[in-house]
Order: sequence, then structure tokens, then C-alpha cells
Amino acid sequence: MASNRGVVYLGPGKVEVQSIDFPELKNPKGKKIVHGVILKVVSTNICGSDQHMVRGRTTAPAGLVLGHEITGEVIEVGADVEFLQVGDLVSVPFNVACGRCRTCKEQQTGICLTVNEGRAGGAYGYVDMGGWVGGQAEYVMVPYADFNLLKFPNKDQAMEKIRDLTMLSDIFPTGFHGAVKAGVGPGRTVYVAGAGPVGLAAAASAQLLGAAVVIVGDMNKARLAHARSFGCETVDLNEDASLAEQITQILGVPEIDCSIDCVGFEASGHGAQAKVEVPAAVLNSLMEITRAGGAIGIPGLYVTDDPGAKEAAAKTGNLSIRFGLGWAKSHSFHTGQTPVMSYNRQLMQAILYDKIQIAKAVNVEIISLDDAPKGYAEFDKGVARKFVINPHNLIPSTKPKVKTETAAA
Amino acid sequence: MASNRGVVYLGPGKVEVQSIDFPELKNPKGKKIVHGVILKVVSTNICGSDQHMVRGRTTAPAGLVLGHEITGEVIEVGADVEFLQVGDLVSVPFNVACGRCRTCKEQQTGICLTVNEGRAGGAYGYVDMGGWVGGQAEYVMVPYADFNLLKFPNKDQAMEKIRDLTMLSDIFPTGFHGAVKAGVGPGRTVYVAGAGPVGLAAAASAQLLGAAVVIVGDMNKARLAHARSFGCETVDLNEDASLAEQITQILGVPEIDCSIDCVGFEASGHGAQAKVEVPAAVLNSLMEITRAGGAIGIPGLYVTDDPGAKEAAAKTGNLSIRFGLGWAKSHSFHTGQTPVMSYNRQLMQAILYDKIQIAKAVNVEIISLDDAPKGYAEFDKGVARKFVINPHNLIPSTKPKVKTETAAA
Amino acid sequence: MASNRGVVYLGPGKVEVQSIDFPELKNPKGKKIVHGVILKVVSTNICGSDQHMVRGRTTAPAGLVLGHEITGEVIEVGADVEFLQVGDLVSVPFNVACGRCRTCKEQQTGICLTVNEGRAGGAYGYVDMGGWVGGQAEYVMVPYADFNLLKFPNKDQAMEKIRDLTMLSDIFPTGFHGAVKAGVGPGRTVYVAGAGPVGLAAAASAQLLGAAVVIVGDMNKARLAHARSFGCETVDLNEDASLAEQITQILGVPEIDCSIDCVGFEASGHGAQAKVEVPAAVLNSLMEITRAGGAIGIPGLYVTDDPGAKEAAAKTGNLSIRFGLGWAKSHSFHTGQTPVMSYNRQLMQAILYDKIQIAKAVNVEIISLDDAPKGYAEFDKGVARKFVINPHNLIPSTKPKVKTETAAA
Amino acid sequence: MASNRGVVYLGPGKVEVQSIDFPELKNPKGKKIVHGVILKVVSTNICGSDQHMVRGRTTAPAGLVLGHEITGEVIEVGADVEFLQVGDLVSVPFNVACGRCRTCKEQQTGICLTVNEGRAGGAYGYVDMGGWVGGQAEYVMVPYADFNLLKFPNKDQAMEKIRDLTMLSDIFPTGFHGAVKAGVGPGRTVYVAGAGPVGLAAAASAQLLGAAVVIVGDMNKARLAHARSFGCETVDLNEDASLAEQITQILGVPEIDCSIDCVGFEASGHGAQAKVEVPAAVLNSLMEITRAGGAIGIPGLYVTDDPGAKEAAAKTGNLSIRFGLGWAKSHSFHTGQTPVMSYNRQLMQAILYDKIQIAKAVNVEIISLDDAPKGYAEFDKGVARKFVINPHNLIPSTKPKVKTETAAA
Repeated sequence: MASNRGVVYLGPGKVEVQSIDFPELKNPKGKKIVHGVILKVVSTNICGSDQHMVRGRTTAPAGLVLGHEITGEVIEVGADVEFLQVGDLVSVPFNVACGRCRTCKEQQTGICLTVNEGRAGGAYGYVDMGGWVGGQAEYVMVPYADFNLLKFPNKDQAMEKIRDLTMLSDIFPTGFHGAVKAGVGPGRTVYVAGAGPVGLAAAASAQLLGAAVVIVGDMNKARLAHARSFGCETVDLNEDASLAEQITQILGVPEIDCSIDCVGFEASGHGAQAKVEVPAAVLNSLMEITRAGGAIGIPGLYVTDDPGAKEAAAKTGNLSIRFGLGWAKSHSFHTGQTPVMSYNRQLMQAILYDKIQIAKAVNVEIISLDDAPKGYAEFDKGVARKFVINPHNLIPSTKPKVKTETAAA
Repeated sequence: MASNRGVVYLGPGKVEVQSIDFPELKNPKGKKIVHGVILKVVSTNICGSDQHMVRGRTTAPAGLVLGHEITGEVIEVGADVEFLQVGDLVSVPFNVACGRCRTCKEQQTGICLTVNEGRAGGAYGYVDMGGWVGGQAEYVMVPYADFNLLKFPNKDQAMEKIRDLTMLSDIFPTGFHGAVKAGVGPGRTVYVAGAGPVGLAAAASAQLLGAAVVIVGDMNKARLAHARSFGCETVDLNEDASLAEQITQILGVPEIDCSIDCVGFEASGHGAQAKVEVPAAVLNSLMEITRAGGAIGIPGLYVTDDPGAKEAAAKTGNLSIRFGLGWAKSHSFHTGQTPVMSYNRQLMQAILYDKIQIAKAVNVEIISLDDAPKGYAEFDKGVARKFVINPHNLIPSTKPKVKTETAAA
Repeated sequence: MASNRGVVYLGPGKVEVQSIDFPELKNPKGKKIVHGVILKVVSTNICGSDQHMVRGRTTAPAGLVLGHEITGEVIEVGADVEFLQVGDLVSVPFNVACGRCRTCKEQQTGICLTVNEGRAGGAYGYVDMGGWVGGQAEYVMVPYADFNLLKFPNKDQAMEKIRDLTMLSDIFPTGFHGAVKAGVGPGRTVYVAGAGPVGLAAAASAQLLGAAVVIVGDMNKARLAHARSFGCETVDLNEDASLAEQITQILGVPEIDCSIDCVGFEASGHGAQAKVEVPAAVLNSLMEITRAGGAIGIPGLYVTDDPGAKEAAAKTGNLSIRFGLGWAKSHSFHTGQTPVMSYNRQLMQAILYDKIQIAKAVNVEIISLDDAPKGYAEFDKGVARKFVINPHNLIPSTKPKVKTETAAA
Repeated sequence: MASNRGVVYLGPGKVEVQSIDFPELKNPKGKKIVHGVILKVVSTNICGSDQHMVRGRTTAPAGLVLGHEITGEVIEVGADVEFLQVGDLVSVPFNVACGRCRTCKEQQTGICLTVNEGRAGGAYGYVDMGGWVGGQAEYVMVPYADFNLLKFPNKDQAMEKIRDLTMLSDIFPTGFHGAVKAGVGPGRTVYVAGAGPVGLAAAASAQLLGAAVVIVGDMNKARLAHARSFGCETVDLNEDASLAEQITQILGVPEIDCSIDCVGFEASGHGAQAKVEVPAAVLNSLMEITRAGGAIGIPGLYVTDDPGAKEAAAKTGNLSIRFGLGWAKSHSFHTGQTPVMSYNRQLMQAILYDKIQIAKAVNVEIISLDDAPKGYAEFDKGVARKFVINPHNLIPSTKPKVKTETAAA
């Protein structure tokens, strides 16, 4: 049991499965801790934000063990773990949070003040997020376990729905957070920018919240087809018709109530500019189509530094935003890492009571740990799938049922 | 066109369709107003709160024209009506509200300060609510029309869904308000006390809001069967098992997250006491089964004076409430008339986009104006139906499709 | 250092300072814990809720060590205490909370689910609150210390303001919570029922929140005089004029925006009934004088069982509440133990930046540990003072500067 | 009485008092309306946003009658005005709002959907805001008067405090809105960018809301001196020390809880760049100094088009914003015209009960109508004064008591 294997970032475009250290109850500085647990990883997903690192758009160092979307079984508990036991099946919020600082006490676990010396907020397996070892591996350590972990009430029931429950560690709460911050509720019209997994999760979340209609925009035809498969309307940004025109075709009016940016800084332009990186393209278009008084939820990642940016300004995170447009419409803008803990319990209930099929919405495909590098490569090409790594073969590998995975032309 | 007929309250147990005055653009004091419109009534529903009057549990005077759930077509507009035109199809919130006082400006249209000299809050066709003539009639006048009325965007589309849209004037927003105030949202467990139309509307609203499970409690087996027909769990209060025990059978735990009182002051006891009026029975049971920190939404009507009460204290609206139990659990209690305008637009959208089948949930039956007295009598017996009066035969009369209308034994 | 002395409840009307065990890092079941700290108590206040026990209105057992309002210096830390060190000066929220359960994660630390087997919510030195040893003593143990404790940023500065800062453990946040839940904000008119320390703290909190005018009602003339000393208006409930009449004399209208019940279940009637216990008197009067749409904050304690009650119904916590009046006015009611942690940091800042003189508002008097029984007796007679015990003479004993301490006639 | 005179914009840098039409009960299209009133203007203030027009930074046409901060006496009422009478003294929110559209019903009167054909939101005397005639005049017409106007309860009392009450039409609610949206409350640390009248109003509002400390930053030494006169801390942006360094000198930490942008798009740089227009300078600096999880209130105006901008991008309202910094700190951004009606009643109460001296905070100077052009010129030079025009000499002209009016070097 003392061996471990994980997905390691080696440089732009290169990830590999390697032997890594078996986790210990120690923090990134090597100090022993008693509040942590060791998990046997049951499922761990590849995330779009991992891709930012793998594409070389960050300063991630070679050797970093990836993975912050983790579900696992407790195999060892520290001396100050009171409410978890060996054998419990748990979901790990991607945010590492201490539960003891001001922001954690205020439920803002995405910006914990103590787990990362560099800035507020920590995460597993991510550059600049505190040095916590990632969980795309066989085993992983989770600190402040009583605070961080969500225990599933019934292990057998949970294993049956593991494809859905594995989305609780990040993507489902992240999409949901975007929808909540955008003011989505019963009867609202919603636009989701981006049909990647976060966008699809936001769309499904908007449906769960009772939205009247959810429109998803992207340039990737396969992903748009998948969005339609669970009841979304779609906008194809390759087309000449403007976003507002396409929305008018769907709704009869050019504006929506709530909008969610699930793209972030690696945005492209529209129509003829669809292949050109325009970092503020999504934000500017959302101000155009969001009704006066509306809110814009922004789970999509924007960075303080982007060494790979095309423009000089963007290298230091400066974007050319038509802010006056939002101001004229009294918009509000809501940014930041999702505090997963604020949402994961209620979303678990929604899954357990069959109120949402989140695995279907994001089109889960189960892969082995050894296939992780292949998963990264396919995901980067834009397939309409969400890859879930299955390091111990505890969940059977299946093909996605919905056949929409062809990459966009 | 100068003739009019309406449902008139004559005394306990007695209502009759009579000729009544054709409405004029005047307020109850007879002062001419220019902000009103005259409506040709397309649909108007019988409400449980009408029953309080008809049963003689209020001080309603003989001669009162009933009806506060109104949908109609504009046939005349006052000089200061700018945004409505003859021919528009509109939903009338049951609250009469001026849109110009402090509480209206704060969106609390249920307690308008100017339309009722006796107290805050006005309504059509209701005792102590300002003397506005009711709308269970062929024609009715609506003051402050630009403010009060919700215009349907497309008249043909609206007529196709008129069975659902007619619920926007009261019962759907009222049930929804109860759910919102109780904190219902995705993944929450919900208990609704009462399976009458408001209870069923609250249950359907809770589903729309994403609840994990909705449990409805009543003693009326037909109504409970109807609740099950659209996916609710149910608790039969005739049974010996306590409410907490029955909830445990459904959820595995004896408490729910959110509870909604859709019964009000004419409550009965539980089990052996099921035939005895115990005005605080529902409130006390909700404190028992609601989790610590939970909220209790109370759309069910409680009155300041109840001449028909069994106990002396209840005659002046005093109930024996185990308030310390709620306090120990940090409960909050949310009362009052629903401000329909806060919700009706978004709920209209939910209907128009097929996100809810509210007519099915409350089991609509269309009846003629002449059959209104019969409708009152049947409703009083406890049939699981919501009667919608069709004064101009603009909607075809149909039998309810769900056959659960037998009154409780 | 292994000796300890504390205030012990011996039976109705009897408290005594006795030798008690020196605290250990163990929970009430005797299980060793590593997340706790031992405090040398710097200040610890006598609370009105202690009086409920001492008057024999609860089932508190003889031998209970009293005290839940504690400020102290850390003298020993457990192995899992990461953010506190020996020597830190800290405020202890009266709620014992684990920081790891659902309600704690949702900031509802007043109803922690794990620290009390009997019900939600724990406290130090209080009947039915989990068995945690009280802090009216020389030393006390605090569990989950990183989560529970608020560290003062500068110890010398804090000792200078210790009379104010000692109010952060309970009474200041409790009054503030009542004001917040009642919707107090800039320009609002506020009524506070009760001029005991919680009422005075609520009044001062309402001023801090920007209230236009704060009216305090009581029958105790000394306490009313003290309320006037810091700018409150007052209502004397011994007078024949009704509460609404007296409010009209002050405001010109008979209603206020926001009301706060700082009395709880040991309420008396008004005017001629001023000496008679009428448990629902305050709640009923607040519904009368609160504007339609207003909220009622209820920090005053209501109990599930009151063995000392005069009426049979009240013995099981049943009160005769005119609930229909509140319903007609769309009131909301907010109950429960204050989650101190939600407020104590910002209120500490308000003290440190001289935005409030809370010690002056509640009329602090410093007493020795040995004088605690005398303090209990005087407080019970209704003096307008808040007694702060000074077990180690770290703060000099002073006489209150405001001479309003005569008990009510 | 049929004559009228007003302040007219003639071109960049040129305003003049001219004879203008006496107002009629007609809308800008010339259609007769019955919901309006004619006011005799008692006081009308010069606003910083008027300066944007007068400086030629907008497309305002010559001939535009200026003025949107209006207090007046009703001298004529339309046929559908029910709650106002001739002789009433009223405050006019600067937003023209119908009270009948979706956004007005939702209390977002800053973005009324019907009073301006070009976009959401109307105002008096302002370019692109619907063509409503301005009120820097002897008489003005206000539409939808019952909805829009706030009547002072006692005319004599109001005239005594008219210097304060005249701030209710715009600047006080605008500063307050910024503070509310920034999350200001008791004990919070606050930074206000800009010491012009809106900045000073925001600072005073933050104090009213209970802030622990309010820091105001500007380059204008006279205005900073005035900010200090009522208890603010200040930061001088001419200095070399960075904003964060200066904040650290005041608070001991480089971050504040809440920040408010009262500058808008005509921002300048810092230190050496203090004379250079850098439109995103304020927004970027606020992201730097606002704590993770904090909110940024943005009452300062940003425009969709800025023909006078230095940079090409800024001409179409595009700013170079370091958005990734805000995202990393989970900031939220709140923009738009203030919905004055949401706040003016409570702020009136705060004035009438002496809880704030807003006239002193913004340093009111009363001037005659004929001196308005001089007022514009002085204000443009940066004097620390707020000019209030007194068209009918109903308020005596006084010199400001605080002598800090020297323009910045």
C-alpha cells in the first residue's frame, strides 16, 4: 500500500503517469498535521483548468502532480479527525481550506487565508495554490478533513451514482455558483458562454434552478450538439449572425435575464474572429446581451499573469473591457473560485434524489489512470466529454452513450 | 354590454349568481379614477380563502360579490393608462395595490397602505380588504392598472395555456411565496402542511425550485392521492404514526429542511384528534419537524378575529403556540398575504416555457358561472379539484383528467 | 496553577464560589481532545440568562459551574491548535461550536449539531447545553479553539478597552443580532422591549447601525434612566398610556419600523398588569406596534419547558399568541441563540475604533470573583448594571460612573 | 407665473442662465400627461456629472437645460395625482421612472424601461437620458409624481434642514448606494476613491452605516482637508508612497474590507502619473487594496462612448482593466445609476433625526440662480464645495463655514 502513482506535468503539452510518493499527514512545508486523512482515490476528473497548465499558459513547474477533482475512500485518519472513519466514502472540494480563518468562517472557502502563503485560496495539484499534492493518483492526502470532506450517507447508493457524485468536487458546484451569482431562478432566461464541461454544468444547474430557457453559446459544434441533448438552446458563434441576433431568434428579444461566463481568459472572438484570441470577448458580449439590472456570474478563470498571452497587456492580465456598457445597464459582476462547500451538500441531495443527471449533461467518460495522458490530449482537441479517471477500477469503464464527441471542424 | 352577473355571498353556506352593476372607473368610495381598466373576465377561480367567508368564519356582509383570482381582457382603459390597450389579455394579482405608497415601492404589494382604510392591504371581493368589487363575474374593474396588471406577451399562446396562467392571480404565487420564504432551493427536503390547492401549488413550486423531495401532509385521502400523482411523497394525518415517524419512513431522518403551512387557522389535530379544530396544530407540528436553523413559510391564513372559533381565545385570534420549541431551534417564521407582483412574471415564464404544469398539480376543473355555487359546495366537501369559472365560455369546460376527486371519508 | 475556583449553582437562589477542578483538554464525556486550549480568565460576565437558572426556572442541577461570557489569555494549547499561541488574549463566543458540522459550516454556530447530545447548540456553564464547564472561574477550557476564539490583534490596546471587549462574548452580539434580524438600518425607527443588559446592548447596536430613533420600553425606572443617558427615548410600561400611545407621543405615529424582544418568556403585563407574568405579553405588543411588513428580532429567551411557570400551558412552553395580528401585517419573526461568531469580529473593530461605548451603554461594574454571589443578588433586584467578574485582578475594580442603579420601585 | 429661467448648456465650457419655457404637463414627445406635477424649485444642486457635459466629454446638444438634483414645492397637480397636494414640499429623485414597468416594480428605478427610448434609465436635464427638461430653473415638471416624489412630513422642519435635505435628490443616496453595494456595515474598514461631493457623501454614508474607519483618497488637498474635517482618514495620491503603503500606515494592513469608486472614467494616475488620464486607474487600484472576498461599489460614472478620451479604445468606453486580479480575489463589482427611491426615505429620516450632517460633509454653498455659471466654473477648478442653487431666494445665501475651499495646486 505504500506505493502510489499519479499524473505528472512535465512541460507544455506533456503529462505522464509516474510513481509518486505515498501521501503522508504533512502539510506542503513538511510539518506533521493531525487533522488530515489519507484517501484511496475512487474517481478523479480532468478539469479544463488543468488544461491551462498543460498548455503552458501558467508558470506551473515540471514535476507537479495534477488533479483537484477527487472522490475517495478514507483509509487513514489523523488524531484530530472526529467525524470521519476509515471506510467512509467522501467528496473532496477542490478548495483546500482550513475552516479556522476569517474567510472560511464566512463560508468563502475559495479564498482561505492560511493554506497558501502566496495569496488567498488553495487547491490540490495546481500552480500557485499552496503546493498541495494533486489527486489524479491512487492516493491523496486531505487536510482539515472534518471541515473539508462531504461524506456520502450511504456507500452502496453512492457507488451506483458515482459518475454523478464525482462532479461534486468542482465542476457541478462551479457551474451552479455561476448560475446562482447570475441570479438564475424559476422562469429566468439564461445565457451560458462556453459549452465545455463547466458551461454544460452551469446549463444543467440553471435548469435545476428552474430557468425558463437556457441558451449555450460556443464554436464547438459537437459540444453544442451535446448541450441540445439535454434541452438547451444553442448559439453557434461561428455563424455571421451576431449573438444578439441569434438570441432574438430563440427568445423574440435580444436580451436575457442572467448570463454566465464559463470561458474565461482564453476567449476567442466571434464569427470571422472565431480563431483569434480576444481575452475580453466574452465579458464584452455578455454586457451586450444581459438585460439592464442583470448580473453576470463569472466562474470562468481570469488570471493575474498570462505569460502565453498574445498581447502585451494581457500578459499581466489586463483586458480591454467595455466597462461603460455594463455601467449603463447597472450590471453586477461576480468573480472568483467557487466555494464548493457552500453548495456540495444540497447538490449531492439533488443527485441522490434524481433531480439532475449531471454526468449525462457533461458527458462523462471513465478512463484508467494510465489513459489520463490520452484523456488530456483528447480534451484539448475539444471533444464533448468529461474524463473521469478510475485509478483502482472501482467503477467500470464505459463508453459515453451520447455520440456527439467529434471535435469541432 | 352594460349588464353584468356575479357570484354573491348571501350568508353562511349561501352563494348565488345575481345581476350586479357593470363596473365603472370609480374607487369603492365612488370617486372617479383615471388609472383603472375594465376587464371582460376570461377566467376566475374559487379560492380556499373564499370558503372562510362562505362558511361564516368572517364578518363578511351579505351582498358581497366574491372573487379575487381574475384573468381578463381589457375592454376599456382610463385616461392615465399608458401601457395597456383594449384587447390585451392580463393576469390580475389578487392584491389591490396603488404602486405609489411606501410598501408598494418596496415591492410589498400585499400590504399597500392606501387602498384599504381599515388596515394595510387590499383585495377584490373580500371582507375587510377595502371594498373592491370581486371578479367572479362577467366584468370587473382593476385600479392602478399599469402597475397591477401582468400582460401576457402573446394572446393566442396564452389562451392555449389559460388553465395554467389563471393560477398566476393568487394560488401559484402564494404557494411559491411560501416555498421561497421557507428557504426551498435545489436539494432541499420540504414538508407542505395541507393538500388543498395552495398546498399543491406550494408543492409544485418547491419542485420547480429544485427540491430533492417534497412531502405533503393532509387527512384528505383524495387530495393526498392527487399530490402523489405529480411526484410528491405524502403523510396521512389520520394515521396513528406521528408526523415525525412518517417523515422518518420517507427520509430516514425525522426532520426536513423547509416547511410550509398551507392550512392556516382552521387547522385540525392529528390522528385521533383529526376531527377536532386545533388552530395552532400545524404551527406546532412544523416546529417539531423542521431542522434547527430552518425557516417556516406561512401562506396559510391566520386571522385577527374569528367569530366562529370554538375556543374563547381563538375568537380574538389567540393561539396556544409552543413558541419556545421554535426558539430553541432558531426557527424563523414568515407570514402574510403574498405580494403576487413579486413573482407572477417569472412564474408566467415558467408556464410559457413548460417548466411547470400547475393546472395539473392543482387539478383544474372548468365550470360555468352558473355552476359557481355548486363549485363552492363541492370544494367545501374537500374534493381534490380547483374550480375555474369561465363566465364567457372563452375556455371549453373539461373534466379533470386525473380521477382523484372523491371527497375524504 | 493546578488550583481553580468558580461560581457554582447550588439550588434556587443559591450560588457560591467554590474550589473546582482545573480544566483539562477533555470533552464533557471525558474524552481527550487536541483542538482545545486552556484559558486564564481575564473577565467573565454575569448574564440575564444565568438568572433563569439561579431563580430556579430551569432544570439546572446543583453543582453546575456557571458562566458563558468569557474573555481570557491562552495558557495551554492542544496539539491541533495552529493559529493561537500561549499569551494570546481572546474572546470566547458563548456558543460551543465544532466548526465541522453542517450548521457550523453555514455560520449558524448557535445550533452546532455535535457539541450537545440533547439538542442543537452548546454553551459553557448552562443547563441542557452539552455539559461544558462554565467560565465564571479562574480557568476554563475551550474546545475547537482555532475555530471558536477571536484573538485581539493587540494585547495592550485590548486590555485598555477590556470593559467593552468583554461584551463580545455574548451580550453585544446578541443585542446586535436582534437588531439585524429586525431589519435595523440607517433612518429606521426602532423599539426595544426590555432595558436589561441585552436590551441596552440592542439599543446601542441599533444606534451603531444608524437608526433614526431608538425607543426602549421597561417598567424599571432606573434602567430606563440609563437608556436615556446614551440617547434613547423611553416608554414606561407602568404608566396607563398604552405602548402605542407612548410611541405616538415620541414619533407622531403609533408604529415603528423594527422591533426587538429582549425580554423573553419571563414577561409581565402592562400598566395595571405590570406585576403579573404574561409570557406572550411582549410578542403580542410588538405585533401591535410594528409596521406592516416589519420584522421582529427575538433574542429574548423562550423555553421549551418552564417548570416554574404560573399557567399549565406555559409549563410546556405554550404561549397564547395573537398570531393572526402578525399575519395580517406580514410580519416575520426571528428567534434563537445568537451565532456570536457571525458578528464578533466586526463588533470588535467597532470598539477598537471607538464607534461604540458598549460598556457605558450596559453600565459595566467590575467585581471580584468572591463578590459574584452578591452580583447575582443585586442583578436579580433589577439594578441597572452589568457585572463583570475579574478573577485575577487583571482589570481594576471601578464603580460605575452613571448613578442610575436604584432598583425599580 | 408663466415665466421661467434656467441654466442652459451652450457648448464646451459654456453655460448661461436664460429664459426658458414654463413647464407643462407633457412628456418630452409633447404628449399630455395627467400623472405629473409642476414644482416651484426650492433648491437645485450642481452635480459632478453635469461637469462631464459642460466639459464637452459627452454628446450633449447646445440648448439643453441642466439640472437633475431638485427639491421643490408643488404648485400644480395632474388629474391622476392622488397623494400630493399644492403646497407640499418634495424631494425629486434624479431618476425619471414610471413606476409601472418591470424594473421599476423591482425597485430598480435607475433603469426604468419606458421613460427613455434610447436605453434603460431616464434623468432630468441630461444627455441621452430621455429628454426630460432639467431643474436648475425656477420651475420644473415631474412626471409620475405620486411614484417619484418624496414628500417631507413637516414643511417648516424641512425648510430648516433644507441644506441637508436637498442632497436627497442624488448625491447622498448615490454615495450611500456605493457604500451599501461595497458591503459597508458596522466595524468595516472602507476606502473611498475620490473626495469630490459624491466621495464625501459616500464617506459620510459609510460612517452612518457604522464603519470602523473611512479612508478617502484624492489628489486635491483642499478636498482631502475637508474629508478630515468630519473624521475621515485620507490618502494623498500625489505622494510617492503607493496607495497600499499609505493604507498600511493608517490601518497596519495593506487591505480594506470595502471600496467605493467615486471617480469614474475621468480618472488619473497616481504619484508621477497624477496629471495623466488613466481611465481604469481607480478600478485597478481598488482591486489591489480590497481584501479577498470584498465588494467594490462603483457609483462613479463610466460611459459607453467618450468622444473626449485621449486613447482610441477609451473613445468607445474600452478600459484596460486588470480583471484577473479581481478574479483571483473573488471580488464582485456593482455598477450603475443609483435607484434613489430605494434609499431616500430612510436617509431623510437620518437627516431629520440628526444622525448625519450631510450638508457639512459635502460643504454646501448656497448660490443664486444667476451665479450658477460661476458655480460651474469654480466647481470645475476643484473647490471643496457643493453648490446649491436657490432660484427663489427661499433659503438664505450663506458662506460655507469650513474654510477648505482653495483649489488644489
